[in-house]
Amino acid sequence: MDFFELILNRESVKSYDPHRPVESDKIQKILKAGHLAPSAANRQPWRFYLVSTPEYLDKVRDCYHKSWFKKAPHLLLVTGKKDLAWTRSSDGFNSLEMDIAIAMDHMILQAESLGVSTCWIVAFDTEKLHQLGIVEEGEVVYAITPLGYPEKDFKKHGNKVRKSFNEVVKFL
Amino acid sequence: MDFFELILNRESVKSYDPHRPVESDKIQKILKAGHLAPSAANRQPWRFYLVSTPEYLDKVRDCYHKSWFKKAPHLLLVTGKKDLAWTRSSDGFNSLEMDIAIAMDHMILQAESLGVSTCWIVAFDTEKLHQLGIVEEGEVVYAITPLGYPEKDFKKHGNKVRKSFNEVVKFL
Repeated sequence: MDFFELILNRESVKSYDPHRPVESDKIQKILKAGHLAPSAANRQPWRFYLVSTPEYLDKVRDCYHKSWFKKAPHLLLVTGKKDLAWTRSSDGFNSLEMDIAIAMDHMILQAESLGVSTCWIVAFDTEKLHQLGIVEEGEVVYAITPLGYPEKDFKKHGNKVRKSFNEVVKFL
Repeated sequence: MDFFELILNRESVKSYDPHRPVESDKIQKILKAGHLAPSAANRQPWRFYLVSTPEYLDKVRDCYHKSWFKKAPHLLLVTGKKDLAWTRSSDGFNSLEMDIAIAMDHMILQAESLGVSTCWIVAFDTEKLHQLGIVEEGEVVYAITPLGYPEKDFKKHGNKVRKSFNEVVKFL
């Protein structure tokens, strides 16, 4: 699929069929898309947790209150450590958050290209998530997405609301 | 092109032909890919500066010391304001940096899909860049990329050095 069509079609899906896990070859390809992502100075300061077992799903589901989230058969957590990331010497800017966002974006777009639904989630309960004993000391969870297929009769809304192009873009 | 092929082919290009500007329909599509990008709570806290005129190119070129950077016919700056972005109430996390990274990733991948070369740059001189009088008060420049075509005889190295997959991915 053409890349522009891909991003036009991608949207945050809030419907997951708990009985349709994602095929393992697709899961692998999605994770590899993150694994191949660029990062500042190629530090790859990240870790990807693919949660699919009832024990761990129960724990992570408890960190975000939406009922549709709790139905997804897989949850993908993208985490990282600041001390593994690149730091700009002039002002101490650390690249971790930007690196993580790139890796997640790669995985979300790869999923979309395989017909697998996702939803960027940042409004999770960070404190609870860090208390689960999943991530290591010093590891920050930046974003989560469900991975799965929508429930029967789900339809994308197909409507992207955006500011005007001219408000966002300046030609100099 | 298949998405996985797209990200496999993308690499940081450090060679630009100053005499080959990018066609305006391609520039428009690249910018639209950023314009369509998702952001936390759909705030779109960003602005994209497409710099192509000698006057502004001279200024921005002065903010990064590599000679290949100074040859690119276009420079794209992605900026944003924290007070326009979403903030997580529980801990004050602000989404600006993540939003910006997603928009830039969309534009870089869209460029690649059109055969236009790019390079994520974060190691620029932020102080100098903010003194140019281009960005507004409160606007932060997070990333820059050149847009253009490589010089004659340029070849991609085609070699992605990454940590082992098993070091990065955990299945739970």
